[in-house]
Amino acid sequence: MTYCVGTLVDQGLVFLSDSRTNAGVDNVSTFRKMTVYEHAGDRVIVVLTAGNLAITQAVIDILNEANTTGPATRSLLTAQTMADAARVVGETIRSVYDRDALALKEHGIEFSANFILGGQIGSEPPRLFQLYAAGNYIEATRETPYFQIGESKYGKPVIDRVVQAGTPLNDAAKCLLISMDSTLRSNLSVGLPLDLAIYSRDRLRLDRRMTLGEDDEYFRTVRSSWSAALEQAFHDVPNPPWA
Amino acid sequence: MTYCVGTLVDQGLVFLSDSRTNAGVDNVSTFRKMTVYEHAGDRVIVVLTAGNLAITQAVIDILNEANTTGPATRSLLTAQTMADAARVVGETIRSVYDRDALALKEHGIEFSANFILGGQIGSEPPRLFQLYAAGNYIEATRETPYFQIGESKYGKPVIDRVVQAGTPLNDAAKCLLISMDSTLRSNLSVGLPLDLAIYSRDRLRLDRRMTLGEDDEYFRTVRSSWSAALEQAFHDVPNPPWA
Repeated sequence: MTYCVGTLVDQGLVFLSDSRTNAGVDNVSTFRKMTVYEHAGDRVIVVLTAGNLAITQAVIDILNEANTTGPATRSLLTAQTMADAARVVGETIRSVYDRDALALKEHGIEFSANFILGGQIGSEPPRLFQLYAAGNYIEATRETPYFQIGESKYGKPVIDRVVQAGTPLNDAAKCLLISMDSTLRSNLSVGLPLDLAIYSRDRLRLDRRMTLGEDDEYFRTVRSSWSAALEQAFHDVPNPPWA
Repeated sequence: MTYCVGTLVDQGLVFLSDSRTNAGVDNVSTFRKMTVYEHAGDRVIVVLTAGNLAITQAVIDILNEANTTGPATRSLLTAQTMADAARVVGETIRSVYDRDALALKEHGIEFSANFILGGQIGSEPPRLFQLYAAGNYIEATRETPYFQIGESKYGKPVIDRVVQAGTPLNDAAKCLLISMDSTLRSNLSVGLPLDLAIYSRDRLRLDRRMTLGEDDEYFRTVRSSWSAALEQAFHDVPNPPWA
């Protein structure tokens, strides 16, 4: 499995992904699930992927190839808006479906693929989308300012409580790291290293893109201090009246 | 869906279940998922159910009927040990499968049913089991002292951090209520009222069995104070070094 999450707040966007892929529990590998398309001053587009690795890699390959074929080709580099970019990704998912779905079905394999797409193009505000295997998509709003794909449930409660449109960008990043920590602790199919990308609105270049492994000092601090703070939080909840 | 959880600690057992049942999002009902068999001084057995309501109700019906047919019948009241009780429930699941599975399959409905079974019989220590739709079962140990069925993922991280064999009984109850709160907040298919049962080892009668609705004062306190404590916990985690 996988856990990826992206959030759109007033100050910008944060993306976080793990890197574990498994075909059964005895075939576990590390594959990165974040792809960044950045033309400083013009656009920043981030894609996160979950699902069947052969499918998601095929989609990313085709997106990459389209980017190299010049301005006449529909691609993430020629898309005029983020919604246009979402349609480019959706059409690419459908082209992989047309090519592979029948063969996969013959082998009893579901066409499973989920994507988070976010970024900013020119003067349009930053936007965030989730795309499904059918190539259709939904867009984040102020009421629902985040999307998760993969093993989403373990890390959902903390995001539901903390992240709102007005949450500062670095608080959002901290919250996504805590959400990832909850997922890592409870589900072996999600694993380090993590990819973290932070984007401040209207900057048109990533603020930072980091890979966080076991030895990353800040992520270790997040894990240990969240653990200690949770323990304290548990003790702060009053005991049952019958105790 | 449903969320049920049971835990076995050195001091005894705690069981907690929600009461929401849904067939699609437009057909939501309230059904209790906890059944208690108590013969004070002899045995306390608690069963929690998740899955297809017709299947789990059929299993409970047959278990109840067997209890009324006297000491010659295999039943939860005549079982000599908790493992024997688990086999009684397993055999009952299989009898419902034999009766209904083919008809369900004709309608494209999966035979879905999960059970948590725990309690104490006589001088045997308290034990806790999880049973599957196939009627087979696993037993909790000191290393894994809890079982969840239904919508288990949202509420797993907090249990993973807090509950160990040595956790006091009332702390375990508080933790299960927090776990339920996380699930209620993030998943509409889980809902109030809750059923809570607490059993102290060797007492051979329930310490308490409570139904907690919206207006239960302690559960409201748990929800609001956990919310405030989590917010504090979030702020206690240091900010990113780049912030």
